[in-house]
Amino acid sequence: MATELDVLIANNTLKAKAFLDEIEGKKPLFICTIATTETGKIPGLSAAGANPDFTDFTPPADAELLLLGKCKSIQGVPITPDGIPTPGLITTSALHLADIPVLVVNGGVKVKPQIPFVDLGGNSGRDIRTGDSVDNVEEVIERAKVLGEQMAKASDYLVIGESIPGGTTTALGVLSALGVNAEGKVSSTLLQNPHSLKGEVVREGLTAAGEKFGSLKNNPIKAVSCVGDPMMPALAGLVIGGARQVPVLMAGGTQMTAVLAVINGLEPKALCNVAVGTTRWVTKDKSSDICGIVKQFCEVPVLAADLNFSNSRFPGLQIYETGLVKEGVGAGGASIVAMAKLGGAVTKDLLLKEIERNYALLMGLK
Amino acid sequence: MATELDVLIANNTLKAKAFLDEIEGKKPLFICTIATTETGKIPGLSAAGANPDFTDFTPPADAELLLLGKCKSIQGVPITPDGIPTPGLITTSALHLADIPVLVVNGGVKVKPQIPFVDLGGNSGRDIRTGDSVDNVEEVIERAKVLGEQMAKASDYLVIGESIPGGTTTALGVLSALGVNAEGKVSSTLLQNPHSLKGEVVREGLTAAGEKFGSLKNNPIKAVSCVGDPMMPALAGLVIGGARQVPVLMAGGTQMTAVLAVINGLEPKALCNVAVGTTRWVTKDKSSDICGIVKQFCEVPVLAADLNFSNSRFPGLQIYETGLVKEGVGAGGASIVAMAKLGGAVTKDLLLKEIERNYALLMGLK
Repeated sequence: MATELDVLIANNTLKAKAFLDEIEGKKPLFICTIATTETGKIPGLSAAGANPDFTDFTPPADAELLLLGKCKSIQGVPITPDGIPTPGLITTSALHLADIPVLVVNGGVKVKPQIPFVDLGGNSGRDIRTGDSVDNVEEVIERAKVLGEQMAKASDYLVIGESIPGGTTTALGVLSALGVNAEGKVSSTLLQNPHSLKGEVVREGLTAAGEKFGSLKNNPIKAVSCVGDPMMPALAGLVIGGARQVPVLMAGGTQMTAVLAVINGLEPKALCNVAVGTTRWVTKDKSSDICGIVKQFCEVPVLAADLNFSNSRFPGLQIYETGLVKEGVGAGGASIVAMAKLGGAVTKDLLLKEIERNYALLMGLK
Repeated sequence: MATELDVLIANNTLKAKAFLDEIEGKKPLFICTIATTETGKIPGLSAAGANPDFTDFTPPADAELLLLGKCKSIQGVPITPDGIPTPGLITTSALHLADIPVLVVNGGVKVKPQIPFVDLGGNSGRDIRTGDSVDNVEEVIERAKVLGEQMAKASDYLVIGESIPGGTTTALGVLSALGVNAEGKVSSTLLQNPHSLKGEVVREGLTAAGEKFGSLKNNPIKAVSCVGDPMMPALAGLVIGGARQVPVLMAGGTQMTAVLAVINGLEPKALCNVAVGTTRWVTKDKSSDICGIVKQFCEVPVLAADLNFSNSRFPGLQIYETGLVKEGVGAGGASIVAMAKLGGAVTKDLLLKEIERNYALLMGLK
């Protein structure tokens, strides 16, 4: 690689470097996949919204932020119960700096965003404790493949992020159903990762579905239908369709490992053209283990944007360094590709300046 | 221009050549905008469907044909009452030959296509004789602008077609409301252009809306709301958003002149970056006058793919030479950009071969 980017490599170094080499200077399309579930409303599970009921508004508002630079479905921007702003702020800043186009894809949301979005025929997800959480999985995957193929023709490569509250719990659900040991390894928006609550919810879901750890190893579609979420079929299909022609960066944290596992069960060769792009806050997180999940079933490289907000002039951004939020809306992946597109002209410092500028603007600060 | 393409220039020769020069060898994105209306079901008005009620299925089926190479919402492909296949067959063949990506945008349809499509918050249109035919016009335009801007970042240029039965009648409606003399000048899928019926329907619509010829000259949004169709705000917004950054080819016949008039009223400078691309069957048509409409309010060039099916081995395709169908689903524009992308490697003869191949395949012929 010609330039040194502010990107950390978390595993599979050679593959990671090859992936970065391949995308450097190229023009990506950023796709944000949105979805909501009743799982995300289980108290104590997610901080992706000021309160559980508010999680229905977080994904549409994130999508609006990406396309309009402001939200329409809510006032201000999505925040955690502590008032910490959405990582969509990072994504928006990165994409704007590098002039990267955005397409919003609806995996299944309760509240439709007030912007153009691609519909795949999916619905919002039920609580996974029902054991029957997602409708129409196979059809959504098929439609997403078609979209991924078309968008791959229109771009040098794809970067695909997500906004779905409660997504690490459904990730644990699907990984467990597929026989991947992820308990205690998925990440969290919260400071105290509620691993035991997530484990309980997943076990309840598997039991309700008449399944157990690993029993759906050969049926990823059923795994998503029973204990997954509607982001998964959309994202998996997009990756499979896109990776047939171009590199695909899956922009997210441990949620992406569940999507990887689904792809691995459906079309494993797609993974040869795939990397995960996340943040340093995820790869350095002591309460989760993204690489420990990935290595159980594939050799996909994990890259991390070397974001550091310690020296931000805003306490609301500094707090990311404590481990709150960590990732979401493809923040890490968007940062990586903004840097890769402009080959070093976008550094982590420049990116922080742009994030601070947008933060001040959106929070009404100076 | 380096190569001689099978493209005819119908007006504004210098601008037309400059546009062709600009797009030659470049990579476009093809956007198909679909919509349906009750206007399209008025007996005798449209042949875009085996019978009036069937027109609800024509646009979704056309969109499926473009993305999947076959329809899902109907058996076979959309046909006229005489059994002539949809011009979407031409579009599909052209885009496939030149490997051009497709995005489907829903302006407002009653029957949703079973493929990925972009939603803009629009609804299917009412009969324009109500004088209140389209909901949500301003919002759909705004959302379409956002999409057009994003897709312009992802492509060298945009080609935007339509599938909407009855669209020349609503075109006449909007042109009339805007004070453009189009009576007797809009095209038709039928051999006998039902000009007097179209004129009656439009007059009834204008009267019901409390408007008359030219009375909405300064209010294109109201003109569309009263006597237009849901394809128009979607397409106008896409063009305005896209043309800010890249050339835009509006792929269609006289329907596009109504969209041009709307854009001319909203953001006239967008028209500097725009051309209309249609078929020879439209520009040579004696029962309509696309250039005669355009020249009343702008200098946008009109290009025509020099398609000629006289020597086709299939009577169902030869019949296009009698003046049936003529255009639709961006057939002319798609043919032009397939030729322009591959600079002469795609000729009208090669294109006809591919159309015949697909025709035989889809109609179960040999």
